[in-house]
Amino acid sequence: MTYPVHVFAGDPLDRADALRRDESWIQARLAREDSRFLTFDELKVLAERGPPTALSWVGPAVLSIKAPGAAPLFLGTRDDTAYFGLDVSGNGERIYTNGASPHAAFEDARNTAAHLSIAQSGTLAHAKSLVDWHARHGFCANCGARTAAHFGGKERICSGCGAHHYPRTDPVAIMLVHHGDRCLLGRSRRRVTKLYSALAGFVDQGESIEGAVRREVWEEAGIRVGAVRYHSSQPWPFPASLMIGCLAEAISTEIVVDEHELADVQWFDRETVRKVLDKAPDAARELELPGRIAIAHHLIRAWIAPMAG
Amino acid sequence: MTYPVHVFAGDPLDRADALRRDESWIQARLAREDSRFLTFDELKVLAERGPPTALSWVGPAVLSIKAPGAAPLFLGTRDDTAYFGLDVSGNGERIYTNGASPHAAFEDARNTAAHLSIAQSGTLAHAKSLVDWHARHGFCANCGARTAAHFGGKERICSGCGAHHYPRTDPVAIMLVHHGDRCLLGRSRRRVTKLYSALAGFVDQGESIEGAVRREVWEEAGIRVGAVRYHSSQPWPFPASLMIGCLAEAISTEIVVDEHELADVQWFDRETVRKVLDKAPDAARELELPGRIAIAHHLIRAWIAPMAG
Repeated sequence: MTYPVHVFAGDPLDRADALRRDESWIQARLAREDSRFLTFDELKVLAERGPPTALSWVGPAVLSIKAPGAAPLFLGTRDDTAYFGLDVSGNGERIYTNGASPHAAFEDARNTAAHLSIAQSGTLAHAKSLVDWHARHGFCANCGARTAAHFGGKERICSGCGAHHYPRTDPVAIMLVHHGDRCLLGRSRRRVTKLYSALAGFVDQGESIEGAVRREVWEEAGIRVGAVRYHSSQPWPFPASLMIGCLAEAISTEIVVDEHELADVQWFDRETVRKVLDKAPDAARELELPGRIAIAHHLIRAWIAPMAG
Repeated sequence: MTYPVHVFAGDPLDRADALRRDESWIQARLAREDSRFLTFDELKVLAERGPPTALSWVGPAVLSIKAPGAAPLFLGTRDDTAYFGLDVSGNGERIYTNGASPHAAFEDARNTAAHLSIAQSGTLAHAKSLVDWHARHGFCANCGARTAAHFGGKERICSGCGAHHYPRTDPVAIMLVHHGDRCLLGRSRRRVTKLYSALAGFVDQGESIEGAVRREVWEEAGIRVGAVRYHSSQPWPFPASLMIGCLAEAISTEIVVDEHELADVQWFDRETVRKVLDKAPDAARELELPGRIAIAHHLIRAWIAPMAG
């Protein structure tokens, strides 16, 4: 698999599983001036506005303004520096007196990622998914008591029943369905848009990836799928999906749209799609396709030109 | 992808996403005599002892003995019959006066699956993961208040903050690492065993499948991996994993065992592995390999004989 690394998949930090289990090591690193913290205010990330856009890291002084109940979340090490994520929601404006660069501001994570290096987008995805999960898991799903972060944020442990809880990652099947010279794209109901993308859905309980692909395409578009081929995968931290990208061969062609999920589903011919993707001057104006940040873009490109895939 | 369907991946029910959102349809089906319920007592499944071993379904009378707080969990339909999972923990012995076959008993799910048809093992995986998740999610992780099942068990909704919670599926990368004529297998610390299997680990936040393969092999065995090739995937309902099977090419060979995770890791040559897998008379007695129920078995087989893979 020599496919280029996707946006959000390039985190270069050593996650250092052995170190994160050592609470005294974590505590020592939290106190060290060279430790770096990536802060989030209501899931917006502190970023240098640039150009170039970059993640904006601050030192341990920022621990004084962390959100109520928030724990520093160990991300990993690089060149013997320890990196952490930290939720400062509610205290975001105090970042400027706690070491932030004058060119930094809390920015939307997705917009920021589109301008970051792949490596930095990976660290952002890692930190954002963790910060978000911890912010919404202060209590035990098993007994309702309070939980606390342990092992650098790799677990939360319940103060009541002692249950261990782990950050979740939700596998999503995303598939470009194709049939001869046409591919199947859908338009979301969630917003008014000209954007058509690959169909997608969460992998269900007791289901393989291939099973999820066939079920979702049948549910959303009424199309039967035969062969399914895995292409590549991408973490998508909104909040914590793992996009599992596939190419899927249709064995029927008559579309029945699931109007609960989608506003429209259509077959599009290869040449129309290629022109829009390449922003050709004579490209169809009524069609927009996902940008390079999304795995759907790369699935479409792999179908258009399999050799360059 | 013409690979045979794995154990636990063959659920033939139509999950009928549109129907499960219709509470009145669900209620009507719960009352109908032809609706079928697969019951679990402390996660053991009611099964016909056979031969042949089979899932043992009962009618709606069983609703009178459901576990405190348990909801019937809609699995899907087949030939206009509705199928549900139901937790009867604590009341299991009352199943025999509530419609169970005299040849049925609550059995370990994994042992049972090894003797079921692939289709029935898939339904078992689906039901068991759902029953288990609901049993451990009676409270809201966000605020600590009680939650209740909705949409046939597809969601739990919080009575306090209104948060929606969805059953989780945990993606796991499982990889047969190979280098020339040898493959890398590890032995668990968790029990005294001769069983060596493929290395595996949960996909972490902000990580692709390929990234997880490389990180886990490095952490657990100190081996660097180059090309990663997806093979197939298998739901593994203990409690709710999605095993994502890959073949991974090693680009280093010196093993450093992570003794926190594994008792031993070794390179094994193809002929040794083939003989054990095929139960040859002259197979090595000090080595056991995973059985056909596990995706690891099929990854090893795919490496031994790529064409038959």
